[in-house]
Amino acid sequence: MITLYDLVFEGDRRPSPFCWRTKFALAHKGLTWTDVPTGFTEKEKIAFADSKALPVIKDGETAVKDSWAIALHLDKAYPERPLMDGEAGRAFARFINGWADIAINGAIFPMVIGDLYDRVRPEDKDYIAETRGSRLGTKDFTAFQRAAREKGMATLRMALEPARRALRDQKFLSGAVPAYPDYILAGTFMWPRSMSPLELLAEDDPIYAWRERMLDLFDGLGRKAKTA
Amino acid sequence: MITLYDLVFEGDRRPSPFCWRTKFALAHKGLTWTDVPTGFTEKEKIAFADSKALPVIKDGETAVKDSWAIALHLDKAYPERPLMDGEAGRAFARFINGWADIAINGAIFPMVIGDLYDRVRPEDKDYIAETRGSRLGTKDFTAFQRAAREKGMATLRMALEPARRALRDQKFLSGAVPAYPDYILAGTFMWPRSMSPLELLAEDDPIYAWRERMLDLFDGLGRKAKTA
Repeated sequence: MITLYDLVFEGDRRPSPFCWRTKFALAHKGLTWTDVPTGFTEKEKIAFADSKALPVIKDGETAVKDSWAIALHLDKAYPERPLMDGEAGRAFARFINGWADIAINGAIFPMVIGDLYDRVRPEDKDYIAETRGSRLGTKDFTAFQRAAREKGMATLRMALEPARRALRDQKFLSGAVPAYPDYILAGTFMWPRSMSPLELLAEDDPIYAWRERMLDLFDGLGRKAKTA
Repeated sequence: MITLYDLVFEGDRRPSPFCWRTKFALAHKGLTWTDVPTGFTEKEKIAFADSKALPVIKDGETAVKDSWAIALHLDKAYPERPLMDGEAGRAFARFINGWADIAINGAIFPMVIGDLYDRVRPEDKDYIAETRGSRLGTKDFTAFQRAAREKGMATLRMALEPARRALRDQKFLSGAVPAYPDYILAGTFMWPRSMSPLELLAEDDPIYAWRERMLDLFDGLGRKAKTA
């Protein structure tokens, strides 16, 4: 019996890229889970796991925090259908995890922070204004986002080039079938999809077609999720 | 019997990051090779392979051009000690190949183009001035390099962050033992090492320690190579 604490925005939107890594990973394993929507300011719900960030899962009596630790836990506890195949698969996933966090999430964030702020739960707006405001040096997220998009789109599309090259030759980042590296990057795209109308990819981009395939997996797990 | 056509600079320096991928790959397989130093303007030496770029190998009667194609060829022709372990290993290496080309080589190039120009063979200087000059919009490579270093070092070190995170937890990008992803990034560092005095890494960077390990491999193949 697995419980997942999943970040929630207004209108039951679920944008967290890290929680999406875990949702795709659970679905890959064929596991079902009970969902606990958790707002930014509901840290008390995950205090039992000694965590201040999502996702957190409770798998039987075991609490696991952090999407990477959860992926390792799932491969250990449920070794069939590995998320990471062998040492090479784990090394690949670890690299993609860092690359997505730094190069891709980092490029998307400034372009959608205004839309994000608009869609968090009303009771979480002050928290976002404080934390993101001090990081960005402004609380006018709409203006910040507008300025960021001017150069940001080209930066993002360039940063995605290694994935684009791979996806010109193969169906998934992991090869013929998807594995954890695909779920990491798919989670990254579920994030803007769930809270911003901004389209990040050109239709003829091989990553666009890959994203469509990812949205269809697991009976449309990603596609059915509430969009911006 | 393998022949490698390897890019040569003045004083027998061998900086090509792509040729280094192949040299590390050959050494990983325990193969020996005959070396044909080839200048930028000696394309006639590799015309037999229908190639205008290095590396090229001749393996018996088979000509193979392009470092990626050579790596695939070596794993097929010499399946022991795989460079890429299974489909995950190949997917990982393919991703790192694109990432190194775009994010890392692309960040290093403007910071060392002046040093590179200074060290190409005298008969290749006009070729470099024309090709790199038209790409950069100037032939004053010394001034260009100086300006590029102001912001370029921070950009490079940030771009390396996914590798840094992996190398905090594991000895090589590929895990406990090196494989083709490591040789790709090692080749990238052999490039400035062979033609520029610029140090790109801080001594306490986990990538610095990894690079030392890579220089020691195969009886010091990288360490023994002529430096700037």
